[in-house]
Order: sequence, then structure tokens, then C-alpha cells
Amino acid sequence: MRILVVNVNTTQSMTDSIGEQAAGAASPGTEIVPLTPPFGAESVEGNYESYLAAVAVMEAVRTHPDPFDAVIQAGYGEHGREGLQELLDVPVVDITEAAASTAQFLGRTYSVVTTLDRTVPLIEERLQAAGLGARCASVRASGLPVLELERDARAAVDAIAEQAARAVEEDRAEVICLGCGGMSGLAERVVERTGVPVVDGVTAAVTIAESLVRLGLTTSKVRTYASPRPKRILNWPPRAS
Amino acid sequence: MRILVVNVNTTQSMTDSIGEQAAGAASPGTEIVPLTPPFGAESVEGNYESYLAAVAVMEAVRTHPDPFDAVIQAGYGEHGREGLQELLDVPVVDITEAAASTAQFLGRTYSVVTTLDRTVPLIEERLQAAGLGARCASVRASGLPVLELERDARAAVDAIAEQAARAVEEDRAEVICLGCGGMSGLAERVVERTGVPVVDGVTAAVTIAESLVRLGLTTSKVRTYASPRPKRILNWPPRAS
Amino acid sequence: MRILVVNVNTTQSMTDSIGEQAAGAASPGTEIVPLTPPFGAESVEGNYESYLAAVAVMEAVRTHPDPFDAVIQAGYGEHGREGLQELLDVPVVDITEAAASTAQFLGRTYSVVTTLDRTVPLIEERLQAAGLGARCASVRASGLPVLELERDARAAVDAIAEQAARAVEEDRAEVICLGCGGMSGLAERVVERTGVPVVDGVTAAVTIAESLVRLGLTTSKVRTYASPRPKRILNWPPRAS
Amino acid sequence: MRILVVNVNTTQSMTDSIGEQAAGAASPGTEIVPLTPPFGAESVEGNYESYLAAVAVMEAVRTHPDPFDAVIQAGYGEHGREGLQELLDVPVVDITEAAASTAQFLGRTYSVVTTLDRTVPLIEERLQAAGLGARCASVRASGLPVLELERDARAAVDAIAEQAARAVEEDRAEVICLGCGGMSGLAERVVERTGVPVVDGVTAAVTIAESLVRLGLTTSKVRTYASPRPKRILNWPPRAS
Amino acid sequence: MRILVVNVNTTQSMTDSIGEQAAGAASPGTEIVPLTPPFGAESVEGNYESYLAAVAVMEAVRTHPDPFDAVIQAGYGEHGREGLQELLDVPVVDITEAAASTAQFLGRTYSVVTTLDRTVPLIEERLQAAGLGARCASVRASGLPVLELERDARAAVDAIAEQAARAVEEDRAEVICLGCGGMSGLAERVVERTGVPVVDGVTAAVTIAESLVRLGLTTSKVRTYASPRPKRILNWPPRAS
Amino acid sequence: MRILVVNVNTTQSMTDSIGEQAAGAASPGTEIVPLTPPFGAESVEGNYESYLAAVAVMEAVRTHPDPFDAVIQAGYGEHGREGLQELLDVPVVDITEAAASTAQFLGRTYSVVTTLDRTVPLIEERLQAAGLGARCASVRASGLPVLELERDARAAVDAIAEQAARAVEEDRAEVICLGCGGMSGLAERVVERTGVPVVDGVTAAVTIAESLVRLGLTTSKVRTYASPRPKRILNWPPRAS
Repeated sequence: MRILVVNVNTTQSMTDSIGEQAAGAASPGTEIVPLTPPFGAESVEGNYESYLAAVAVMEAVRTHPDPFDAVIQAGYGEHGREGLQELLDVPVVDITEAAASTAQFLGRTYSVVTTLDRTVPLIEERLQAAGLGARCASVRASGLPVLELERDARAAVDAIAEQAARAVEEDRAEVICLGCGGMSGLAERVVERTGVPVVDGVTAAVTIAESLVRLGLTTSKVRTYASPRPKRILNWPPRAS
Repeated sequence: MRILVVNVNTTQSMTDSIGEQAAGAASPGTEIVPLTPPFGAESVEGNYESYLAAVAVMEAVRTHPDPFDAVIQAGYGEHGREGLQELLDVPVVDITEAAASTAQFLGRTYSVVTTLDRTVPLIEERLQAAGLGARCASVRASGLPVLELERDARAAVDAIAEQAARAVEEDRAEVICLGCGGMSGLAERVVERTGVPVVDGVTAAVTIAESLVRLGLTTSKVRTYASPRPKRILNWPPRAS
Repeated sequence: MRILVVNVNTTQSMTDSIGEQAAGAASPGTEIVPLTPPFGAESVEGNYESYLAAVAVMEAVRTHPDPFDAVIQAGYGEHGREGLQELLDVPVVDITEAAASTAQFLGRTYSVVTTLDRTVPLIEERLQAAGLGARCASVRASGLPVLELERDARAAVDAIAEQAARAVEEDRAEVICLGCGGMSGLAERVVERTGVPVVDGVTAAVTIAESLVRLGLTTSKVRTYASPRPKRILNWPPRAS
Repeated sequence: MRILVVNVNTTQSMTDSIGEQAAGAASPGTEIVPLTPPFGAESVEGNYESYLAAVAVMEAVRTHPDPFDAVIQAGYGEHGREGLQELLDVPVVDITEAAASTAQFLGRTYSVVTTLDRTVPLIEERLQAAGLGARCASVRASGLPVLELERDARAAVDAIAEQAARAVEEDRAEVICLGCGGMSGLAERVVERTGVPVVDGVTAAVTIAESLVRLGLTTSKVRTYASPRPKRILNWPPRAS
Repeated sequence: MRILVVNVNTTQSMTDSIGEQAAGAASPGTEIVPLTPPFGAESVEGNYESYLAAVAVMEAVRTHPDPFDAVIQAGYGEHGREGLQELLDVPVVDITEAAASTAQFLGRTYSVVTTLDRTVPLIEERLQAAGLGARCASVRASGLPVLELERDARAAVDAIAEQAARAVEEDRAEVICLGCGGMSGLAERVVERTGVPVVDGVTAAVTIAESLVRLGLTTSKVRTYASPRPKRILNWPPRAS
Repeated sequence: MRILVVNVNTTQSMTDSIGEQAAGAASPGTEIVPLTPPFGAESVEGNYESYLAAVAVMEAVRTHPDPFDAVIQAGYGEHGREGLQELLDVPVVDITEAAASTAQFLGRTYSVVTTLDRTVPLIEERLQAAGLGARCASVRASGLPVLELERDARAAVDAIAEQAARAVEEDRAEVICLGCGGMSGLAERVVERTGVPVVDGVTAAVTIAESLVRLGLTTSKVRTYASPRPKRILNWPPRAS
């Protein structure tokens, strides 16, 4: 089975790190193919960049030369998953939803710890739209930009663990979701600090994508995610990109 | 005051029609500038096309050479409004939200009548995300594609009026919103058939945009719609488009 | 166009101030007619007084000798708007709803800052009933009674700005609504303190009423706001008042 | 113990009938005092009339010469209960809420069958505001005006039983609430037709009022229902009425 | 009239205390029959113990030798009420729901103060499932285990009153429900401390059960609480118990 | 890895069939251990039987002699999952939740088709309590009792497929969940009839349990599912069973 894992930003080192994280969780026989979108921001932290990423991820997937069995969109709180579902027959798994869905099996409530405060509303709305908001205790920001996670890993871990601990105590979260593709690998430290299960979206998404493929389940095509109707698309895709 | 009214699809005749509709509702002294996005589908009827439109509309607005006081995104149930709000300081008004917001002053509940069944979930989610879903009685589809509205106007009116009448009777709607930019102009016929007020999103949006400008109100920049942080955007915008 | 702006309390100086505020926001050609109800409390701060005001406002409007094009009910969180809508064909705009509806175009969430703590539940319920509660971050009280706003303006501004600032920081509001007819004029100071847009209900209501009239839209008469059925009303209106 | 049972309309024969119904459900030692409001509509069927009734009921209660232990507001879906709670220390029970609250102990869901279609939204909003809406399966109208209930009792019973049966079958109601003060006495017939428990608001309210008094419980005065602050009330109460 | 009041734990002294509390609230002519379940935990403080109690309470009731008119399940936030309703025709009243339902007649919002933190989610879910969650301001824990309430009554009162006071101030509760069968008798002290009405579930349940019996109302048998279908039940009830 | 799959009823042939279904979905290296509860109804179709099953399943699991890595509770809409989570450290997966959670990755909405009408409320409440209700389009009953599924398979398939088709068309479901342990194996026929993905709870639960084990995730023990406190449990477990 081959699963595309698509980064939402154009920083290759993050694609690599996400790919490794995914590969570590994959079953024997599953090939993980990490992809970087052909255009867009080096880190995605807001609506403008996220909409751009949505389209770039679709281009990356739509033009991928080899066959694949499932797609993982590896960005937290991002736009675009519904568009991928229209374009494809194979399952599409968003890591925000994968983490929340997994967390709900482990505790009555969960919180998400993400990077910047401005990302909080995007994650809240993604969870709400996905029907996964009822048991979300809170979405908290560590205050660290995405790229900072790579630059100063220790400070990042501390800031994230701090918010996770407050989510458990003040917001009554029983599970923590790490709210950023780039946070993969920090789980262990947050478990130590909080004593609750910590879910990483990328690895959760890999097991869900594998499960859907194994069960022979694909995206429903009756209404919301029906294939696009044939029509003229002007000036797209762009030549130069 | 100058207001950009941006079509979401690339069909110039629809831009023209939307522009005329908007101009008809504008106050003396308001200049309506209709824009067609630089790329994208000839009609937008689903998530893939809508995400593409979101980015194309942002490009059209971001690269517009002249100053302006407000922007209207003239597509029903489309993605992207939040991105425009990040990029701009001036008010941004989405016609889906403008219509619903206006309808709520006229009756206890409203229904939206749109084109295709597949557009229904997009509109429902846009209204929900905008906090305008509580008094939405239903979103109904006439079954006619967007471009059909131009080709056979009489059939379109009949199909739309039929669904509007059912919304009033079966779903207990007290106001009807015309759920498509291209439906401007049909209002009168639907009023005749149903006896309830009919709101057109484009004209409602013009009055709201004018009001915000007159009151000196602009988009809040504290969190969700803060300006994008400075960063490297790879391969964007595309050269050729 | 002539718009009645009806104060909910019987303090003439507040009617004057509301009338001035409204006139300042009106378009050229719009005549603002401020009205004081024929009976009721000098300030409305609770359910008993608000129900009394509801009926008094209806009497003021029902017996107004001249024709008019729209009515604004200038009280925050008050009862009665639905009754006016039954009695009239022209649009009726409540300032609580006008402010919230306007705020939703400017940010993802809004808070209301009002006078007394006891008024908070009335405003919350009015917003909920109007379908405008989903994006309300909080309703906060400054602790100052309505009439105090006139007596010690500086203290009033400080108390209100303080609560507005806390709403932005603690409740994550992105827009502030000034929750009292008598607060008109304080907006500027609250903007300075919080850095977010501040919406005044009276001026917002004027632009909305004008918009509805210009668009030719009137209250739906099919169910909730159908005209009262003809019947015997005993001992009403009262002779002496 | 003495309980005031206040009709919302000014039709004395309905006050009598409500009083009898209440007396039939009262415990030995409970005195039922039926009151007719001093002014208002002969039947209350909409917001204007209901707001008038709210104030008239408060006048009737406020000026009642003898002491009493509880008040029942005997109108379905009416405004005003919150005002009574401010004015009084003794418990106030609204029959709409009494019926729903009682029904919830008997089945998972309940429906209300009322008179006119225009009354439906008032009942829905009263239940919603009272926190009793979650298990309301539907509010249905028989199409008969209030006063018709007295004029042609057999037709009334049939129309009501018909809607009750549809509520059980189509809306999955498990209990029926009779949604009008004047429907007292029809319960038996509706039970026969539907096979589910039928709750009458007046009798339910009597047992609840008695229970609150017996338990020594009174209205909370900390915030929402605090007594009105002392202030000048202009031209009220009216002389002539 | 005879009412069974069933303790959920197997501590006889608590059954006695609950029985006395119930008897104190009963009308003349009502016989209160306190029951201890035949098996289960000495105190119920979590899901495992609560499910066990649910079944034990059903056994106690199902095998009770004498006729009875109503049943009260005297545990806070426990499972099982729906099962009793299936087994019986007479009314079944859960004290969690009785308290909340009563509290809603006294104030706009209520809070529950219970024993351990781990009980909070059970109470929240019971209220939610019962359709009584909308006006619940909070469920707070005093931190004291159930049996501690008997051992050190003064400390218990203090801890509970402290949380009640915080519920009123911080969570804006207007009424307090005592969230444990064993808390009966503490009401007076909590009233003194908070100044708001305090509802005890056992006494509230007694008046509700009496009211339902007096009104001739019984559990609806159409769907959710229909009697169990006849079938083979293996190895149940257990011989030895 | 060893996974216990616990039937909720005491019909051995259903345990066998569920075990086979589960084994068919398991990865190489996963051992499926089917269990029948030690007491309870031959088929579980209502609250009384479901509460009994909850306790019986806990006994079966608690007394299982061999170690295991996860538990699946193989009943649709049943009580008890929370109790198992308290008793165990390993993951517990309920098939109702497994199916819904899986369905949400495949379409915007899903419907459940179950056996008897009386089971519908149990499933609705389980989904609601689990935070999975927001995207549930409907729960529909085929009208066939559980044991009938085994006796007349063809009629069962037809009745279920009929309701599934109506869910897709009338309730706008985009995915179907088979709402009964005993329905395993019918998926293919329902796919043929409806054209939408069909999720079976047992196989979905197997992949989820495997995923949680592989990711090293276990139930959170901080609050809701903390282990029971040590205490005296009277007369339990029963000797004879």
C-alpha cells in the first residue's frame, strides 16, 4: 500500500521530518511518499497561507505521477481537505481530524496545543466543521512560530508542555493532541509532564489511512465530495510553477 | 467610495451582470468596480473549484492597482473570505453572509435556494462557520447548474420559485435568500410566488459594505484576521497568469 | 426617508442624545425622528421595566401621527421588537441585534459591554433568540447604572474601556459592541484602549434601517410577525397616559 | 397555601375554566385564586397581545390586595414570567414550562399541540429560553383560534388529537403537552387517541407551585430576578384602567 | 401513596438518612419505603460502580414484594434510570434530574456541587442526556468522598459551601443543587453562605413523584421506555444474592 | 497482539459470527478472542437488557484469565464502555463509536441502520455522549429484531438496504453504518443498493484497536476513567454465575 503524505508548507526539511514520522508508524508493506507542495509559504500560519496551501497540495496530489492508495494532508487546522476528497476516490485523512478522532477513544475530552495564537481559530473551526468539536476542551497556543520548532527544540518542548499541563488542569482535558505537523517527536516529553496520553496527528493519520484501505473503504461520492463536473478551468495550472 | 465586487468564476458575462446588479444598489457617490479572477473555473460548483477561486480572488484583489474602500466576494457558499480579511484593512463582505444577515432582520427564519445539490453543504457550512446558521430553516437546490441560469432564464426562475415556495411551506422559512451570484434579478418573481421578502446577496452586500465604510469600521486585526507574518512564499504568484 | 428612533426609557435627555447620535450616522435625505415612550421607567434595567418599555414603545409607534419608513428600538437587550414587527409593515431594527450583526462582519467574535450585571442575561437571551449568539464571546458589565453614564462620563468611559480590554484579552473578543443606548459617543475611547473595532448599536441600526428601506425590503408577514388578528382589546390604550 | 392563577387574556369565562382546572388539581388546604388581567386582548395569539398581557398580568399580581404563596401564569408561550419573578419573592410558575418540565419525567421526548400556527414560534422560543428545548420533538398547531376551543369543543378535540397523533408518529414524541390554557379538560381524549401520557400545563403548574412552597424554595434574587431598583416610573400604572 | 426510595450504594446508614430526608418532605398519606440494593459498592463514585448500582437498583425494585406508586433513584449522576422506566409502569424519578428541574423554576442558571472530581463528568452527562444541561452553569466537586460526608460533617459542609459560593460568583449560578444523596441536610448552611436557593435532590424528587401520581401520569410506553420484549435471560438474577 | 471482542448478548452463535468477522479484519499477528458474557439476555434490545449486559461484559473482561492488549465491546448503542475504561489500562473500543468515527472520514454525514425502533434512542444517545452526533444524519430502524437477522437473512438484508437507501435520499446521509453486531456481512449488499460506503462496526473497531495498540496509546486515567477507588463491594460478583 502506498500513502502520500503531503506537507502544507514548502520547507523541505519539514517534509522530511513528517515523512520519517509517518514511516515510523506505518505497517510493514506500507510505503510512505512524502510530498512538498509546488508553491506556497515556508510555514503556514493563517488563512491566506492556508488557502494557498490548499490549492498547492491539490496540485501536488493531482499531478503525482504514480498510483497511490490514500492521502494524508499533514497540516494542522488547514483548509483544503474537502477539495482533495472531490478530486480523489481513495481516502483522504487530515491530521487535525485524525488526532481528534483518535483522542476521543482515549478520554472524554481532549485539548490541542498548537503554535501561534492566530492558528487557534483555524483549528477550532476545522474541528467544528468536521463534527469533532463537542469534546474539544480547548485549543491552546504555545506562542512559538512553526519554524521555531525546528530552531530551538528544547524551548519548544517546554512551551508546549506548559500549555498541555494547563489544558489538563484548567480546561479539564484528558488527552492532548499535538497541534502542528512539526511537533512530531515531542510526544514523549509531554506525556512525562502531563501524565495523559498524547496524540500526534501524523502517526494517527497513518494508522487511519491504512485501516480505511484495508477495510476497502473509499470517499463517498454521492453529494459533498462528488467529482468536479467537467468544465473549462482558465489559466490553471500555472505554467511556471 | 470605491467598492471592488469580485466574481468567483471566470465567466466575464457573469462579472458584468453582478457588477450591474451591485451598481443598481449603490448610493450616489459609490463606484462599483467589478473584477474577474485571473484564473479558475468558468463556474464554481464544489470545493475544488471554490478553493481555486478563493486564491484567485485574493490575487485579483491583492494586485488591484487602484485604492478601494471595501471588497465584496460575490460567490455563494465559497471559501476564502477569511484570507481576504487578513490581506486587507478595509471591510470584506461575503454575499452568503450578507444575505443571511439581512434576512434575519426581516423574519424569524430564512431559507437559501441555490443551484446544485452539491452546493448545499458548502452553503450550510459557510453559514455555520459565520455564526448565522441558527435561524436558517433550510438550504435547497433548484437542480440547475450556475451557467444554466444564463441560458434559460425562465426555467431557472420556475425551478427556483418552486423550491422557495416549498421552503416557506415545508421548512417554515419566512424569508428567502437567492443563493447564487447569478440569480440577481430573479427576486421579483420569487416574491410574487411566495409572498415573502426575497434577499439578493449582491445588493445586500453593497449596502453593508457602504454602511461599514460610512461608520468608519474596519476588520479587526487582533487575532483571526491579523496580517500575514512576513515570510518567504515560494513560486507564487505564478508568472504566466 | 423618515426613521423613528424610539428610546426605551422616559428620560428626555437620553432621547435627545440618542437622536443626535442617530442623526450623525444618517445619510443625506434621511430624517431621524427621536421618540420618548409615553410611560415607563426613567432608565430600563431589568425585566419588569423592559416589559413595560416594550408596550410603551409600541404605543409611541402605533400612535405616531406621521408616516415613517422604518423604526429603530434604541434599548439594549430589551423586550418588544417582535411586537413592533407584528404591528408594522416597515422594517424594525433592534440596536442589540444591529450591533452584533455588524460586529460579525468585522471579526470572528465580539463581546458586549453593558451597564449593570443584571442586564447581562437580558442581552444574552436577546442575542440567542435572534440567532446571533454563536459568535458572542461574552457580555460584560461595567457595574455602572444607565443614568450614571450621563452624570460622570469620565468614570463611565474608564469602567467600560476596562471591561472591553478584558473581553479582548480574556474572552478572545475581536470586536466590542457598546451595550447601552446611552453609551453612544464613547466608542473612540474604547478603540484607543483596546485596538479593536467598536460598534455602537444606534449608528449601526441607522445604516441597517436605511439599507433595508433602500432595498425595498419589509418584514415578512407569513407567520411569526403576521399582523394581529382583529379582536377586542379591553381597557387599552389607557386614557390618562 | 394560596396560589394566584392568572389568565393572560381578558375573557372571564376562560379565567373561570382555568380556575376550576387548577382547583381540581390542588391539594387539600390549597386555595386557588383565579385572576383576570385588568386590560388586554380577549385572546392572546401573538407577540403584541402577549407583551400587553405580560404587563397586565404584572399589574394584576402587583396590585392584588391579599397575601399569596405562589403565582401561576396561565398562558402558553407568553412573555412576562421573568418580570413577575423580579417583582415577587414567592415562586412563579409558567404553564408552558411546567408542562414541559413534567413531560420530561415521563418520556424521552415531548411535543406541544397548540392553537394557531403563529403561536408556534412563541412556544418554541419560550421553551428554548427556559432551557427546555432539547427534548422537544415538535410544536404543532391545530389551526383553531383560542376562542374556538370554547365554541366548538368537539371539533377542537378532533383537531388537537389529530396533531397529537402525528407528533407521536412522525416527530417521535413520547409525551404530549396541551399547548393552551383553554385546552384543559381535553387530555383524556388525546390519551385515548395517542396512547401516550398527556400533560396539561395548568394542573402541572399547580403541583409544581405547591411543591416549591412546601420545600420552602423561592426565586433566586442574586442577578437575573433581583428586585427592580428604586426609580421613577412615569405615567404608570394608568389611572383609568 | 407508597414511594420506593432506592439508595444506589450498599451502606445502610445512608439508606436510613435518605429515607428520613424523603419522609420529611412527603405529604401526609405518603409512605416512603427506603431500599438498599442487594449488591454493589459501599459508595458509588464512578462508572463501574454506577453500572453495578444500576443493575442492583433494578433488582431491588423488580423483586420488591409490595405494590408501590412511584420510584425514586437516590444517587447523583448515576446510570440506570432508563432501565427502571422500562421495567415499570409507575413514574421513576432520578434525583439528579429532580434537582435540576426544580432549580430551573427558581433561577436562570444552576450549579451542582458534588463530592469527587471524577463524579463531575457523570453528572454533566446525565444532565445533558436528560435535556437539562442548557442552564447548568457548572458542576463542581468539593473533593470529599461520599463516605466522608458522614464521618466529618463540619468539614464537608465547609468544603461544599465554598464551592457553592464560587459557583455563584465565578460561574454565575443563581441556584445550587446539592449533588449527592448523602448531602441531604446541608442545605441550610449553604443557603446561609451563598444567599441563593439550595435544592436537595431527594426532597425535590419526593414532591415530583407525588405530583406525577396525583396527576395520574405514568411513563410513556411507546418507544424508549417500552417494556422489555419477552426473552431468555441467562444466569440472571444470581442465586446467591 | 491479543484483542478481546466481547459480545453483549448470551447467544453463542452470535459471538462466533462476530469473532469471525473480527478475525477477518485483523492484521497478521493479531489474535481475536471472542467472549460471551456470563449472564444476560439472548439478545439486547433496550435499556434494561443493556445495563445488564454492561455489567456482564465487565465481568467477562475482568475475570478473563489471559493477558490482552485491547477490548472491543461488540454491541450497538449499548451502555458500559466507560466502566470498562475504568477497569482497564488497555484501549477499549465500542463498535457504535468505531463505526461513526470511521464513517466521518468518508463523507460529510452518516446514518445508522439498526434493528428495532426502540434501539434508535439508545444509539442516538451513545453517539451524542461520545461527541459523534453532529454529523449523524439519522438513525433508522429496519423493524427486525436482533435474532431475526440470523433466522431470515434475505429479508433482513432487504429491510436494512431499504432503510439505508432512504437515509441516503431523504436524510442526506453520505455513508451508512450497520447498526448491530449481527449485521456483519451484509455490507456488500447495502453498498450495491445505495452506492455509498458502508461501515461495519466490528471490523472498524478491530482496525482502531490495533492502531491504538501500535501507537502505544492507552486510556487516560486522570479523571473520567480513573481506576475505581479501593472499597468494599457487597455480594459481588455473584457466586453461581
